[in-house]
Amino acid sequence: MKRLQKPIIPAKITYDMTVNQLMEEFSGCAFGAGRLFEAREIYSEMINDSECTKFFGLAGAMVPAGMRQIVSDMIRDRKIDILVTTGANLVHDIIESLGLHHYKGTEVADDIELKHCAINRIYDVYLPEEHFSRFEEKLKPIFLKLPEILSINDLLSHIGGELDDDNSILKSACDMDVPVYCPAIQDSILGLQAWLFKQTKPLNVDVFADMKGLIDRCYEAKRTGVFIVGGGVPKNFILQSMLVTPKSFDYAIQLTMDRPETGGLSGATLDEARSWGKVGENARSVTVYSDATITLPMIVAAVKRGNE
Amino acid sequence: MKRLQKPIIPAKITYDMTVNQLMEEFSGCAFGAGRLFEAREIYSEMINDSECTKFFGLAGAMVPAGMRQIVSDMIRDRKIDILVTTGANLVHDIIESLGLHHYKGTEVADDIELKHCAINRIYDVYLPEEHFSRFEEKLKPIFLKLPEILSINDLLSHIGGELDDDNSILKSACDMDVPVYCPAIQDSILGLQAWLFKQTKPLNVDVFADMKGLIDRCYEAKRTGVFIVGGGVPKNFILQSMLVTPKSFDYAIQLTMDRPETGGLSGATLDEARSWGKVGENARSVTVYSDATITLPMIVAAVKRGNE
Amino acid sequence: MKRLQKPIIPAKITYDMTVNQLMEEFSGCAFGAGRLFEAREIYSEMINDSECTKFFGLAGAMVPAGMRQIVSDMIRDRKIDILVTTGANLVHDIIESLGLHHYKGTEVADDIELKHCAINRIYDVYLPEEHFSRFEEKLKPIFLKLPEILSINDLLSHIGGELDDDNSILKSACDMDVPVYCPAIQDSILGLQAWLFKQTKPLNVDVFADMKGLIDRCYEAKRTGVFIVGGGVPKNFILQSMLVTPKSFDYAIQLTMDRPETGGLSGATLDEARSWGKVGENARSVTVYSDATITLPMIVAAVKRGNE
Amino acid sequence: MKRLQKPIIPAKITYDMTVNQLMEEFSGCAFGAGRLFEAREIYSEMINDSECTKFFGLAGAMVPAGMRQIVSDMIRDRKIDILVTTGANLVHDIIESLGLHHYKGTEVADDIELKHCAINRIYDVYLPEEHFSRFEEKLKPIFLKLPEILSINDLLSHIGGELDDDNSILKSACDMDVPVYCPAIQDSILGLQAWLFKQTKPLNVDVFADMKGLIDRCYEAKRTGVFIVGGGVPKNFILQSMLVTPKSFDYAIQLTMDRPETGGLSGATLDEARSWGKVGENARSVTVYSDATITLPMIVAAVKRGNE
Repeated sequence: MKRLQKPIIPAKITYDMTVNQLMEEFSGCAFGAGRLFEAREIYSEMINDSECTKFFGLAGAMVPAGMRQIVSDMIRDRKIDILVTTGANLVHDIIESLGLHHYKGTEVADDIELKHCAINRIYDVYLPEEHFSRFEEKLKPIFLKLPEILSINDLLSHIGGELDDDNSILKSACDMDVPVYCPAIQDSILGLQAWLFKQTKPLNVDVFADMKGLIDRCYEAKRTGVFIVGGGVPKNFILQSMLVTPKSFDYAIQLTMDRPETGGLSGATLDEARSWGKVGENARSVTVYSDATITLPMIVAAVKRGNE
Repeated sequence: MKRLQKPIIPAKITYDMTVNQLMEEFSGCAFGAGRLFEAREIYSEMINDSECTKFFGLAGAMVPAGMRQIVSDMIRDRKIDILVTTGANLVHDIIESLGLHHYKGTEVADDIELKHCAINRIYDVYLPEEHFSRFEEKLKPIFLKLPEILSINDLLSHIGGELDDDNSILKSACDMDVPVYCPAIQDSILGLQAWLFKQTKPLNVDVFADMKGLIDRCYEAKRTGVFIVGGGVPKNFILQSMLVTPKSFDYAIQLTMDRPETGGLSGATLDEARSWGKVGENARSVTVYSDATITLPMIVAAVKRGNE
Repeated sequence: MKRLQKPIIPAKITYDMTVNQLMEEFSGCAFGAGRLFEAREIYSEMINDSECTKFFGLAGAMVPAGMRQIVSDMIRDRKIDILVTTGANLVHDIIESLGLHHYKGTEVADDIELKHCAINRIYDVYLPEEHFSRFEEKLKPIFLKLPEILSINDLLSHIGGELDDDNSILKSACDMDVPVYCPAIQDSILGLQAWLFKQTKPLNVDVFADMKGLIDRCYEAKRTGVFIVGGGVPKNFILQSMLVTPKSFDYAIQLTMDRPETGGLSGATLDEARSWGKVGENARSVTVYSDATITLPMIVAAVKRGNE
Repeated sequence: MKRLQKPIIPAKITYDMTVNQLMEEFSGCAFGAGRLFEAREIYSEMINDSECTKFFGLAGAMVPAGMRQIVSDMIRDRKIDILVTTGANLVHDIIESLGLHHYKGTEVADDIELKHCAINRIYDVYLPEEHFSRFEEKLKPIFLKLPEILSINDLLSHIGGELDDDNSILKSACDMDVPVYCPAIQDSILGLQAWLFKQTKPLNVDVFADMKGLIDRCYEAKRTGVFIVGGGVPKNFILQSMLVTPKSFDYAIQLTMDRPETGGLSGATLDEARSWGKVGENARSVTVYSDATITLPMIVAAVKRGNE
């Protein structure tokens, strides 16, 4: 019977096996392991497809969690052509580019005591409040040099160009000519800085100015693939960009813990996106429901090539 | 011992009991039921505090799920002073204000078949694709009348003023002078319409223009409370607005299924927000981890007053 | 188009509305609210079907959370014909039947300090350790009177018969001739008591002895319905009992927060159970993914009749 | 400040890195990646502690998912001293030991069609119904040879001794003298077989008979560690066995997607277990909230030694 063709083949663990070998062992497994293998398959096909424009959506506090280097390496390895992310990830990336650190803390913390110590908590990560003063000092002169009217992507390019850290996501994107989109940029400490600046100086960042560039890329692309970490605004902003084109994504991967049953877009299945025409009828897609700080590094490790 | 003062009192169900009576029964319960009772307590205190400025964050596909009337009634009942929401909720609100419907479908659907029938799926809700054409027709003349430079809130006010449906969230906000903020407005079909419009006509919506108004309200407020449905951008945008003031929220309620362990802001505890100074040291706060399409109506029903 | 027949009708909240009226408002809603309405519909049909044998599966710490009275009332209202539950729920039920309380605590507790205070924590519920001594005192004389060989159901009947609290689940089941099954009874403090007793006295409780009675009931039933709170052993033990009969469940409701993607039985959809023949092809079924301490009381309140 | 001592060090992915090297990279990360590193640290310490008795709790459909070989190898590698699992995992293990397979299917299936094809679905795994006939044939003669009174562990030893597959979990446990406990054994197809057998022949498996052996092991152990996959009955049965001893677990790891907020034992934090004295005050413990079919293999791979 055609439904009974692929037997489950139990995974076998061996001494000093590589991440890629472990992934191979997952090829006969089901549930999360099976999905992770499928994600590697799709991702491998996608990055080896030279005519595929590769979108990357980065939501969640991935930079504070320690995923910054992975993303900047992906950009420098040309595995990301277009990046859509949140203001928070960029703020934390800029902070680290100043040589400032986030710290391992604990999620069972006395938050009022932390407040008294001027430490901000992000789950089990601690961030000294004073880092935001350094962040402000860095941004002020950059803001002063901005043109009066610009797009969010322009604003981020200006900032990225002033960073002095090759491991920075924003700097790497700048160096590699990868556009960075950040639809809700005002929803971040960057937004608060902009408010402060606008108290005394003009600044006009046009909400919709980036859409043309993004949609043009969608039109031009021969094929498109999307790798979504988390969900949120980056997920939808990437997927919806296809709606006004006659195309749809050919490859789609999502790593998330969000669930479909609440009806929100973050947890929506990639199949749902097919009904909208965002993901193609014949596209390969998979969602891995597991912690992305574990699964993102695994997938990247499993397709890392020797010459990178 | 002080830890053992409040015995669990099992809930008792009676014939034809009101939602409020059920909530009273939850007063002696724990887990979700106990948290829901606590949410009602906080909410009741908050709306009876005449010096409290009430923020409302609305994320998730709450309008397609049937929560539109509840939110517009809350606005007209003066239970919301400032609304922060997503582009999607506004798009679906505008669509319904045109007399167009969403439909009950099923989440176990053949999405490719739906695509062929031009039906877009949002979990178990169906939306005919042609509604977006009607949406476009509605927006076009509004766009033509816009000033060339405006804020997102201005844009939404203009649209709200042209809607002819008192049950609309946007129209109700307009009528009641409740500002609506939508940081990631470009991440919605509205964003795609703006792109279309900008192909031929100038339009400049300033990303950061709304921040002054929002932060001014925070400064002016004697006390502040926030009711968060879902998480996402609305949650953070509201909470962060306090960061630049010497104040913090005095009341905070969140209804969500998101979980803290992924480290993302959506699932972050409200205690975490205390370490940042977003929520006050002595503020009452609670997160109810349960489906918001069930818990939002319950809380609203339990505090509904006779004269409303 | 047949797919677009049931428009979403936004819920409307009114002053002092009953739980049942709120449920009616959910009839036009989707996501959790829509599912909860569906659960009420199925449950209402099931309890009004006089030829339906009604199974109830109770997992999770429902008694500590304050759901004990609801379940014992359901038994006394003849809404439960067969109860399958966990050892923990029975232990906590017996403790409360001794006039001892659980207490409202907090889930952000110092567990080592609690240990030093001899307080056991169950999420945000506290239980003084000494209650278990009282539990032991209660059980000892009961154990002494037991026959040497018996089934788990027999053991529970003996205990239930010795309880002096009409609000007890076990006593109510005893009074109403509702069999109580508890497959993993050794996985509870009751199990530890049995171990203690067996150090000096013989006791032989036969693992498989209950299956005949349970399966006979399945064979005899004209129609069957199942209401599952949580998941776990009670869920599967009820569902699998149909496997050896030519029948399957005609009504099935599950209230849970567990998710399907991990592949475990607790979060498995009720559709999956159709492939096994546990739930019938034409059976009505629904899973409500929301906190059961909220949804169980709501459903019960919505079908409570005046004469009960 | 002592809270700011361990900076987050972003993970770096390199060509052909081993699973262990990836784990090393997680040492500076937070969220799930940080917890997984911590789990490896604890597990490594635990298996290198020659005086530590190692418990393993296996819940969830881990055998159908392809995790069977990993567990049987752990037993043969002496990384498991005592196994507590579910009836389902043992049934599926026995089926595979007969040379019969589970198959990769899909979770978006037509379950009624599957029913017609006599295929049982476990999320995205398919199992031909006829395998259960073969299972029955295998068990029948074994049942005939059983002593009339025995414990669950005895029953499982008898079955394990008759299996002819070194990759079987049950056979491996048998070969290595690792006791297997399965408190809710009647909650499985094995239970249904026992019911069938008891129609005509006597069989008396004593529910509480295993507790003495288990608790004796707890008393004898110098130190104890527990590795919990999933939650459910195995988790609690292991943890509670310490309650009657003056000891508590010294090492504790849990891999689960269950959440604490529902109050159920499966999702309860390991800290909660400290208030009960199940986990020691100074014990190292961690819960990794991520798919166990991914994290279990990773941890095992990261501590696999060359001579195994």
